[in-house]
Amino acid sequence: MSVTVVVGNPKPASRTLDAGIRVARALRPEVEPAVIDLVTLGPGLLGWGDPAVGAAVRTVAASELVVFASPTFKATYTGLLKLFLEQFDGGTGLAGVLAVPVMLGAGPAHALAPDLLLKPVLVEIGATAALPGLYLGDRTYADDGVIEAYAQRWAPVVSALEVKHA
Amino acid sequence: MSVTVVVGNPKPASRTLDAGIRVARALRPEVEPAVIDLVTLGPGLLGWGDPAVGAAVRTVAASELVVFASPTFKATYTGLLKLFLEQFDGGTGLAGVLAVPVMLGAGPAHALAPDLLLKPVLVEIGATAALPGLYLGDRTYADDGVIEAYAQRWAPVVSALEVKHA
Amino acid sequence: MSVTVVVGNPKPASRTLDAGIRVARALRPEVEPAVIDLVTLGPGLLGWGDPAVGAAVRTVAASELVVFASPTFKATYTGLLKLFLEQFDGGTGLAGVLAVPVMLGAGPAHALAPDLLLKPVLVEIGATAALPGLYLGDRTYADDGVIEAYAQRWAPVVSALEVKHA
Amino acid sequence: MSVTVVVGNPKPASRTLDAGIRVARALRPEVEPAVIDLVTLGPGLLGWGDPAVGAAVRTVAASELVVFASPTFKATYTGLLKLFLEQFDGGTGLAGVLAVPVMLGAGPAHALAPDLLLKPVLVEIGATAALPGLYLGDRTYADDGVIEAYAQRWAPVVSALEVKHA
Repeated sequence: MSVTVVVGNPKPASRTLDAGIRVARALRPEVEPAVIDLVTLGPGLLGWGDPAVGAAVRTVAASELVVFASPTFKATYTGLLKLFLEQFDGGTGLAGVLAVPVMLGAGPAHALAPDLLLKPVLVEIGATAALPGLYLGDRTYADDGVIEAYAQRWAPVVSALEVKHA
Repeated sequence: MSVTVVVGNPKPASRTLDAGIRVARALRPEVEPAVIDLVTLGPGLLGWGDPAVGAAVRTVAASELVVFASPTFKATYTGLLKLFLEQFDGGTGLAGVLAVPVMLGAGPAHALAPDLLLKPVLVEIGATAALPGLYLGDRTYADDGVIEAYAQRWAPVVSALEVKHA
Repeated sequence: MSVTVVVGNPKPASRTLDAGIRVARALRPEVEPAVIDLVTLGPGLLGWGDPAVGAAVRTVAASELVVFASPTFKATYTGLLKLFLEQFDGGTGLAGVLAVPVMLGAGPAHALAPDLLLKPVLVEIGATAALPGLYLGDRTYADDGVIEAYAQRWAPVVSALEVKHA
Repeated sequence: MSVTVVVGNPKPASRTLDAGIRVARALRPEVEPAVIDLVTLGPGLLGWGDPAVGAAVRTVAASELVVFASPTFKATYTGLLKLFLEQFDGGTGLAGVLAVPVMLGAGPAHALAPDLLLKPVLVEIGATAALPGLYLGDRTYADDGVIEAYAQRWAPVVSALEVKHA
């Protein structure tokens, strides 16, 4: 199974990136994830046809498990992440990809955002969004056990779907 | 695999019921689904502890695949269906259940409702909501091929998860 | 200005009711609100045509300011409240009514629910939902100052709209 | 009353822009709206501190009525528009601004998006989002009467709030 982490934080090498990698490794410990830190793609995301953006899209579409990780800005995922998701074809762009929506926030008030706001976009572009959205405290995720509990609960579903998509 | 259809239409034996059965059969042709037409549970749904409601909850929680079918009232699922979902324990009530959100409407304007509104409630009570929400035209679903296309696309995911949950 | 509080808690005389009255009084101190504790309407809410339900609908539709208050069940408003909202005509049932969505929860995790989930139903039935949704801690609302801060911020908008609707 | 139209279409001088101007003029016929076509701001939107972006933010924050117009990409508003909204302070950035969420789509399937998805972001940054979201057919809006009917219904609320904000 190939695994990719897509990071929608406008700051490079962010805690969002770190948390996304942790989620990917917890769900699939035996696979080292590829990482796409969207901010490094720069203005190419504002249009269509940029080669680096196209390569990133192909990497994601060819992955079996993709963690989409975003900080919470104005109570939802970032515009940076949305720009990237707009590069995929509607309905089919993420066909066969198990997509996991992850958001980080300073406090718990926006905990509904991954399931109510981010997951529907992934569904719209055809992903298999079989796991619940995961909301993480951006200062606590490394130690609070939330990622580990999530992985323990949902790794079996990841494995089950791998059987299918193999 | 045991399959159940939960019907949240205040009119008994509704098109919602018919459509829900069709979805269940399309996803799992070899299993005859059980049907829970919520309106028949009556005022017992307004409180907690009603024996018939409790039996319905147990049937659903013990199923492997459950289609939750509702008409669209005021741009979302019905209060009748919500009353029933409130009978389940938060986080665990539908653990291990593959839940499929289905809504029917007169026109396409509310097509986002299954994914944006109904699915998150199923997720909140612990379901594995691995399939996208399905929105059906309430006068066209029997013939328009939407159920068949949905089943063709998503039955493999149903089967993959059955392997796991067996 | 006539003011009404609609309470969607299946327990009568709940903290939801108390909080709803406090919100109404904070927004309109000079008017004693009418209160509709939906649970007292009983099974009449499960169908159409019940006289007591009809009277409640008329009271709400004739009010200028209505606080719709619900506990948070399964991360959203209650089925009890939804049953009542289904009694209104789509698009026009709450025409000219300034509707305020209020939800109470044990912790902050569902704070997005009033704006993402409850307010759209009020909009669908024609309300003027000019104020942001208000989410209250169900054990802290009486003392934490949240209602007072909300009223201070938004009472001018209530007054401005009264000018119009007078 | 100062009026501004913010356009979140990655194509300059789009139908989104045209529709947004029509909505603004219909709600406030006596005022010629300012127009901010976000695509012209370019890569400055990807960070913080760009002077042209800052000027656009100040124009919007100083307006009394702002139409936020976006095409529907992947069933929601664009990343381009979100990048701009992230430039405002949470809770207060649009304080005192009457904000109108408008989205255009090819068909009616995403008609819930303005109220369920775009409006909550405007509310999060402090806007007075007193009008329902408006969803327009991107090939029909100029002639189908939807804008006119919306303006007839809601212009009185715009006027009432102007009294307050004057």
